[in-house]
Amino acid sequence: MARRFGYLGPPGTFSEQAALSFDAAAELVPLPSNAAVVAAVAAGSVDAGVVPIENSLEGGVTDTLDALLQAEQVFISGELVLPVEQLLIAGPGLRIEDVAVVMSHPQALAQCRAFLERRLSHARLEAALSTAAAVESAVHTPRAAAIGTRRAAELSGGAILAEGIQDVALNKTRFVVLARQDRPPTGDDKTSIAFTTIHDRPGTLVDALRQLSDRAINMTRIESRPSRQDLGIYIFLIDFQGHHDDPVVAEALAAVRARSHYFRLFGSYPRFVEGVA
Amino acid sequence: MARRFGYLGPPGTFSEQAALSFDAAAELVPLPSNAAVVAAVAAGSVDAGVVPIENSLEGGVTDTLDALLQAEQVFISGELVLPVEQLLIAGPGLRIEDVAVVMSHPQALAQCRAFLERRLSHARLEAALSTAAAVESAVHTPRAAAIGTRRAAELSGGAILAEGIQDVALNKTRFVVLARQDRPPTGDDKTSIAFTTIHDRPGTLVDALRQLSDRAINMTRIESRPSRQDLGIYIFLIDFQGHHDDPVVAEALAAVRARSHYFRLFGSYPRFVEGVA
Repeated sequence: MARRFGYLGPPGTFSEQAALSFDAAAELVPLPSNAAVVAAVAAGSVDAGVVPIENSLEGGVTDTLDALLQAEQVFISGELVLPVEQLLIAGPGLRIEDVAVVMSHPQALAQCRAFLERRLSHARLEAALSTAAAVESAVHTPRAAAIGTRRAAELSGGAILAEGIQDVALNKTRFVVLARQDRPPTGDDKTSIAFTTIHDRPGTLVDALRQLSDRAINMTRIESRPSRQDLGIYIFLIDFQGHHDDPVVAEALAAVRARSHYFRLFGSYPRFVEGVA
Repeated sequence: MARRFGYLGPPGTFSEQAALSFDAAAELVPLPSNAAVVAAVAAGSVDAGVVPIENSLEGGVTDTLDALLQAEQVFISGELVLPVEQLLIAGPGLRIEDVAVVMSHPQALAQCRAFLERRLSHARLEAALSTAAAVESAVHTPRAAAIGTRRAAELSGGAILAEGIQDVALNKTRFVVLARQDRPPTGDDKTSIAFTTIHDRPGTLVDALRQLSDRAINMTRIESRPSRQDLGIYIFLIDFQGHHDDPVVAEALAAVRARSHYFRLFGSYPRFVEGVA
């Protein structure tokens, strides 16, 4: 039986593309937000969920991280890095020089600013609630084009006027698979944790991080998130190499936990190696 | 003569409110993006600029941080924390139960999701390029309302249908003043720096941070930003108490610099104390 895989819909988003990369045979369940994907995994209404967690230009994906921190029963069981490519899409037959309006989510419009100034300085920009909604709308609007994904072009029957139009060519997003348990050791794993230190005492973060570095554990990511309580109180999200079942890692985790006000193990999972998706 | 103060326009944004709080007599110069504010300060076409740098819910303000990292001649000369309040605004005479469409920037719509579901579940959501543009448009559209600032309501002649409608009551943004030099010591100062460590060696970040904590220097903020090169390479942005002219701080800065691949001093400036703006 196909696994039910929740993702941020509608069909045509980067998240749908990531879900298909994880499991081409999955039954895909579009949901209205990344927080809804996390909640559906926690509630058991899907078997797994795929959410973006980090982008090479924008940093952490806020709504994913905040939802994950609140869902105690959800674990990370896999990861995948996808290149982000934006395309200019319109109804068949429209030429780029005849485009009068460009629709997209404001973030996608911002990511393609240089292209828009160079090739479409005459066109009006129009905001949409998602890139997928913009493509769907543009394909049925005379003289309109939209910025969106290759998958959205396929699904809408739109024609591709230009590809790779984002300002920065190297733009990647890391997605994670969420499930109700993490994965056994494979020999090449990563572990994700979150913690807060005791507030306002110099050196508490350093002391926690030393528990990893003193054991030669290699940190691959560190991110600080506001605690949603006040400026100046942070939750640290850390990824490092190794599995929580490794004795040295287990010892380091216990030591970090002992130095934390709040501590959360998101799980261990096979490390993604580029080109081997 | 009034100082010329650049900010993210149009009039009615939170940035305009912050600029007025810094200097009510300033000549305000609206600019199209936070990056344009940084560039205008660097070029000398304004005397100072005000930009949001950190929000208690969203974390670091991406475009500000990336622009600051690229502008070598721009320094931080002050800070200010403002509460963020979202309001529902419409043309005079419209009752909330007759609102058929709610316009705003998708981020503002997302920040007010619970209110929209509770009070306006019948209304259609419409994306706009900024909250200020949404208010301006809604005020002149029958049965339309917009989510925006108190200042935008004033400027547009709109009526306030509801205030404080954001989901999380405690939502604050920290703004900084940018200028071509920082400030002399006042006795209660902060210093902001950015650096990258040598990549992929366990413990390099910890070693840099220890240069502060071993000297009992209190870190008030740490944030990691992707380097825009690849996932896994980070620039660390750190604020701490003290002025770079203090001998102990100067010593710590030299030690961090010696351990950094890239190092940048954004400057020292008087610490903002809430209620004393």
